[in-house]
Amino acid sequence: MSIEIFLAKSEGEWRSMRSGHSLAFQQFEEVLSEIKITIIDLNDPAVNKLLQKLASCDGIPSTPFKMEWHAESDWEPDDPTQVSAGECILIPIKQSDSHGQLIRSVGYAEAEEAISTYQLLSDNTFVLETKYGQSIAEERIWFVSDNIRCRSSVLKTASGAGVLQTSFSSEVRRINIHE
Amino acid sequence: MSIEIFLAKSEGEWRSMRSGHSLAFQQFEEVLSEIKITIIDLNDPAVNKLLQKLASCDGIPSTPFKMEWHAESDWEPDDPTQVSAGECILIPIKQSDSHGQLIRSVGYAEAEEAISTYQLLSDNTFVLETKYGQSIAEERIWFVSDNIRCRSSVLKTASGAGVLQTSFSSEVRRINIHE
Repeated sequence: MSIEIFLAKSEGEWRSMRSGHSLAFQQFEEVLSEIKITIIDLNDPAVNKLLQKLASCDGIPSTPFKMEWHAESDWEPDDPTQVSAGECILIPIKQSDSHGQLIRSVGYAEAEEAISTYQLLSDNTFVLETKYGQSIAEERIWFVSDNIRCRSSVLKTASGAGVLQTSFSSEVRRINIHE
Repeated sequence: MSIEIFLAKSEGEWRSMRSGHSLAFQQFEEVLSEIKITIIDLNDPAVNKLLQKLASCDGIPSTPFKMEWHAESDWEPDDPTQVSAGECILIPIKQSDSHGQLIRSVGYAEAEEAISTYQLLSDNTFVLETKYGQSIAEERIWFVSDNIRCRSSVLKTASGAGVLQTSFSSEVRRINIHE
């Protein structure tokens, strides 16, 4: 599978169940959220803006996309401040059919721009590694069927020695019958 | 990685945090458990008994092991009947360095003997597929570090069309300082 096909399969609206595991304290977190993935044009102004920030770009920009999410945590369900929402723009920079970089406007674990490396494994699992200031996140995304994706993540300390937390999401495609 | 190395790395005692996702009802389940993995001898009577039940065995039996577990569900924490425990014996039947069958004395999703097929992916992820009467389970196990394993599972209907539930476990090696 190429990154283009992976993203074409990912485009759409998803309902996500996410479980977080804090390993040191054996604490669980549960989050329900909605995720929307939209492929955008390479000539989109937001894409150009992000590409211009990169001094050098070792590869070919391909298939930028926008992710929007709206999460509802299990902490304080009646507290509207606990509902987190956001969006980011992501641009794959292809270095070969199976690997490259992924630039995103907002990081996942820390609030900063981030450059990740990605690879597509032989079984079509998409693996993403992101170095932040204090931590390294490894995410894996794979399709169980056309309408179900799984996503796991592991957050390590920047030295790579300690694992801080893991998470797992089950994402089910939202099919709007009335459209 | 070979199955022998994978199992040598897996031997020991693990504390597991497991999250289950029921997709149709968007329900979460949380389970804390202890898992013990012990490699046993190919000449062990229990191994012979299990091998004799197989009419034909397409491969070479290698590195049998015992799994014991003791789980505590989030349902009715004060009800001792909710604590489930068990053990099973598993025998890999190697067909190549990277794939083969796995025989186990008790199945995972249904209470019956089961034969699974396994493969080791290029990134050392161990993938296990088991067909039961009513369902198919796909499990993936991978090491994040020497002392942390992740395990995901997807339970599909026997036809493969519907996904019933998913789960994810974070397993941290238990290190007994006083031994």
